[in-house]
Amino acid sequence: MSFSSATDSFDSGPRPTGSNRWDAEIHPGWDIGGNANGGYLLAIAGRTMARAAYRPDVTTITAHYLRPGPAGPISIDTNVVKAGRRFSTVQGTMATEKPILSILGSFTDLAANPSEHEVMLQRAPEWGDPEDMPRVEATDSFPPPAMGRVDLRLHPEDNFYNGPSGTPQMRGWVRLTDDEPWDTFSLLLASDIFPPTVFNANFTIGWVPTLELTVHVRNRPAPGWLRCEFASRFVTGGFVEEDGLMWDSSGILVAQSRQISLLPRPE
Amino acid sequence: MSFSSATDSFDSGPRPTGSNRWDAEIHPGWDIGGNANGGYLLAIAGRTMARAAYRPDVTTITAHYLRPGPAGPISIDTNVVKAGRRFSTVQGTMATEKPILSILGSFTDLAANPSEHEVMLQRAPEWGDPEDMPRVEATDSFPPPAMGRVDLRLHPEDNFYNGPSGTPQMRGWVRLTDDEPWDTFSLLLASDIFPPTVFNANFTIGWVPTLELTVHVRNRPAPGWLRCEFASRFVTGGFVEEDGLMWDSSGILVAQSRQISLLPRPE
Repeated sequence: MSFSSATDSFDSGPRPTGSNRWDAEIHPGWDIGGNANGGYLLAIAGRTMARAAYRPDVTTITAHYLRPGPAGPISIDTNVVKAGRRFSTVQGTMATEKPILSILGSFTDLAANPSEHEVMLQRAPEWGDPEDMPRVEATDSFPPPAMGRVDLRLHPEDNFYNGPSGTPQMRGWVRLTDDEPWDTFSLLLASDIFPPTVFNANFTIGWVPTLELTVHVRNRPAPGWLRCEFASRFVTGGFVEEDGLMWDSSGILVAQSRQISLLPRPE
Repeated sequence: MSFSSATDSFDSGPRPTGSNRWDAEIHPGWDIGGNANGGYLLAIAGRTMARAAYRPDVTTITAHYLRPGPAGPISIDTNVVKAGRRFSTVQGTMATEKPILSILGSFTDLAANPSEHEVMLQRAPEWGDPEDMPRVEATDSFPPPAMGRVDLRLHPEDNFYNGPSGTPQMRGWVRLTDDEPWDTFSLLLASDIFPPTVFNANFTIGWVPTLELTVHVRNRPAPGWLRCEFASRFVTGGFVEEDGLMWDSSGILVAQSRQISLLPRPE
């Protein structure tokens, strides 16, 4: 099953059910310990809200994670707050019986490239050939199923399966399976499909639940491998941020992400 | 007039007007070219939404900027999506006749410091004494009135009034006037009160309108000078991001911010 068939086909993707309510499905196999990956949920929400806005692309989207999302049917309520000339802004709520995600996004057409200015203080990294790196093989427990639904290769220096590096960063490559191309919505999946940066920190920690994730999409991605870099600078006050950069196979910066996650409280 | 009297007093701050609707006021003098500063608007929204949630602090808040906010009365609609044990999540809409801001935030009590882990890959910068730097003196046009409502001092290397540095960054100090202490809401003001980083870029550009601003608040700030660093790495696809770090007078990281702004389109 491809990623888009799990989020976007007419059979299984969001279906309008009257004004401002959509039905969709969290498919099995995209979970971490039984609950769907946060990027997967955001991709479903983003696709649905873009349809409600009649725009082809997402520009900036934020989700607050309220409750875990187990596999099964969900509803997505959409409220177009403003339909502007260039951007439309939509509030969304994804729910089962109770809300699991609260979302706010702006949608546009990224094909109309609009500026004469360009500054890039950082370029796409060159790390060698992802085909030479082992694919992360998911299991029922760890690595979790969601990581096996994509083709994920970790940068050798960040491959914590061989022992944590001591630096809270996670770099590597990801592509969808079966040569499925990327779009601006599947980038939302990519923004959260890597293991947490803190798995490379110099302390032992389990999964860190995401409180909020924001993704800025700059450009439509080319097909093939995405190069992704996630890094954390501040583990303070019970929180850790994770900043992401996503580069497509042509070396273009396609998205930036930032999430804030909760650390376990002392026993 | 202090900052909080412009956003929070019983006379002029948000007033509940029945279920889930609040009345408030955009005060004159907080504007840039006649329209209120985006951080000022976010601070009003955040304070109001925290009251709706019965929580003392904001943790993470995102606003999408829909229309300019001129001085005058506004309404803020709040919708508590989840009232949890530790966090409450609220959707908000600030409006005059039409919506000017769509907001999503999570609120908590930051006094309960919850983690045994701490990693800081970056420390509070030491730049000398802000009292030695000239205060940015606002005018009716440029620098705009909002910058005169706080005590703002630019790092000498980033003081574009003497010519742009060529690097899209803006560092400096800010404090509220009349010894008013900071709280987690006025930090939202601080996140957007510095001149745009692109004023130091090696091209000439006017104001860049904010599409979206997200602030993560980590700790309650100590009184006095905040040290702030804003930097942009990518001016691409018609967008520029601006990443902010805010350190309080005791050297604690109190907030991180990121906004995405629009560049002018080619003529």
